[in-house]
Amino acid sequence: MDLTATTAGLASAAAELTRLLPGRTLDPVLSGVLLTATAPGLVLAASDREHGLRLARQAIVHSEGAALVAARPLAETLRALEAEQVRLVVEGPRLAIRAPGARFALPLLDIELHPGVPEPPPAAGTVPGEELRTALAAVAGAVSREDALPIFTGIRMWTDGGRLTLLTTDRYRMARCVLPWPGAALDVLVPASALVDLARRLDGPVTVHTDADRFGLSWAGDAFSTALLAAPFPDDRVRGLLRTEVSGTVELAADTLAAAVRRATPYAGPRGTVTLTAWDGEVRVHSSDPGSGESEESVKAGVSGQHHTASYQARYLLDALRPFADRTVLMEQQESLRPTVFTGEAGQVELTHLVVPMRSPV
Amino acid sequence: MDLTATTAGLASAAAELTRLLPGRTLDPVLSGVLLTATAPGLVLAASDREHGLRLARQAIVHSEGAALVAARPLAETLRALEAEQVRLVVEGPRLAIRAPGARFALPLLDIELHPGVPEPPPAAGTVPGEELRTALAAVAGAVSREDALPIFTGIRMWTDGGRLTLLTTDRYRMARCVLPWPGAALDVLVPASALVDLARRLDGPVTVHTDADRFGLSWAGDAFSTALLAAPFPDDRVRGLLRTEVSGTVELAADTLAAAVRRATPYAGPRGTVTLTAWDGEVRVHSSDPGSGESEESVKAGVSGQHHTASYQARYLLDALRPFADRTVLMEQQESLRPTVFTGEAGQVELTHLVVPMRSPV
Repeated sequence: MDLTATTAGLASAAAELTRLLPGRTLDPVLSGVLLTATAPGLVLAASDREHGLRLARQAIVHSEGAALVAARPLAETLRALEAEQVRLVVEGPRLAIRAPGARFALPLLDIELHPGVPEPPPAAGTVPGEELRTALAAVAGAVSREDALPIFTGIRMWTDGGRLTLLTTDRYRMARCVLPWPGAALDVLVPASALVDLARRLDGPVTVHTDADRFGLSWAGDAFSTALLAAPFPDDRVRGLLRTEVSGTVELAADTLAAAVRRATPYAGPRGTVTLTAWDGEVRVHSSDPGSGESEESVKAGVSGQHHTASYQARYLLDALRPFADRTVLMEQQESLRPTVFTGEAGQVELTHLVVPMRSPV
Repeated sequence: MDLTATTAGLASAAAELTRLLPGRTLDPVLSGVLLTATAPGLVLAASDREHGLRLARQAIVHSEGAALVAARPLAETLRALEAEQVRLVVEGPRLAIRAPGARFALPLLDIELHPGVPEPPPAAGTVPGEELRTALAAVAGAVSREDALPIFTGIRMWTDGGRLTLLTTDRYRMARCVLPWPGAALDVLVPASALVDLARRLDGPVTVHTDADRFGLSWAGDAFSTALLAAPFPDDRVRGLLRTEVSGTVELAADTLAAAVRRATPYAGPRGTVTLTAWDGEVRVHSSDPGSGESEESVKAGVSGQHHTASYQARYLLDALRPFADRTVLMEQQESLRPTVFTGEAGQVELTHLVVPMRSPV
């Protein structure tokens, strides 16, 4: 293998692959980047058996071939190089990274021991990358980080006519996004973390792939795939939560409310409780704790229907408001401890976030 | 106490005091900021018994008085406020922080229990803040972080005629700065960490204060002081290290060498060893490890005298080069395992950094 390519292009690909791979692995082969140089260019790929990522980069290939080297030092070296062009050459048991005046040589790992990088399953439909990015960022806030309950670490995705719904919940709050869907029917539970991280950099048309075992995305010659979560999602309970009986609504700038909640947090005590009271033309943000003192602030809002008072975990409120940044959010309040519903729109994407109030309003 | 002041001014003072105070303290009174409002304005002060910091801020004082409140929530609230002006009022057992539409109330702590904030000892001399900032940043790199050996966590400062010398060592490297000194004689060992952190924001003329027990700085109405370290500094050994017999010198751009050392680090193995070889017109930066591979890079340099090869801990080299950022550094090499001396100048400040080579050059 011998090729010349733009340093920045290879550096961004190597960094992306490093992010996907686990920091420590018992099997050193899985910490590797598979480099495949053919006439059309270079493909950099990696897999930790669960996930697979293949990134295509332009390169002038002097001689075709493949090599497997550790991802982290490859990424660090490419990132730190100042030369605009870099040459990658297999030299005996090493991959040499050459730039003017410098040579770095990484030991080749045994390519025969690598499990390979799975191709994505068949294509189901194509959506604008920006919409998918908005939707995945919005539902990321309600994903559980407790690995002990794997169903809550996933993103439930299903189609219903011309709409694709993404839904996440950790049992205390729930996030849902609905976007237009021009493709085939699908119904899957996808592990969230790698997908959410990757989605931040999606742009242009993105094709969604799926079959009974795997989920994938492909865009501009690059492709990602991941094994599905097999656990059954509590669909009935979710549907129950989404059936709302709204008795009062509040409409206001999401960022203004988030800033007031953030200012109330130092006074929210060890449980982090913030109370919102809908009033005429304003929402009062209030918190109080014997040790921390108390805070009270008014935020202008369009209030209609019944006036409500409810207490929330401050960080759940902030997570719920984040997807609506720079936008107006509609806050729908229900009786007693039924969840409060935050809704809004980002272009074609409908966003919904449910937060369950706390048991003891101040 | 009742006053109105600029939010940004109070926020920066509260943040500075919060940085000085320990994160957790058994005595809640020591986590407090002492606010004293008199006709000329507001003084914010704090002490953890070791250190003391007093910051003066302009304020319109409606009624004089003093109050003690927890530093962290005060700093957080002031930082998060969007209003340009803020009012601080003692209201019963609370300090109210008032802005349009908002009121935050912090419980007052018992001001009688606070040990007070010590005044700095007598003045010894005044230097430009920028010079002191450069000198403290440069010697910070060689301070030990091991509290078990307190003498190496300090900055030794002494005067010798019209010069002030700052010196630090952790036994493996040593940093020294010399700057012009127009004041009285002094010879002290000052705990480094709070002083180094504070020095980053020094500007304008700074007065140095000292007596047998304490060290202090004052500038523009603000003052800092700290208890001295009482341990004896190993002066004879230090003087021995500074006596050099240079057999070869290398002159080069510090940033260029630092970048090459950084690129060599992924190949430096578990001990982090990088080897420098002075050659004709260049320095070769080389590292090698059976597991990590090898790297070699040439950096242009003015080389004279004997050609040397020596190995170093990569992170010690990077610490030694940091104070010379954007500058040319002179690297003086000695025989066998005698330290390598890095010297340069920043305006009127002379910088020296010594690094002991490692025993087994590659």
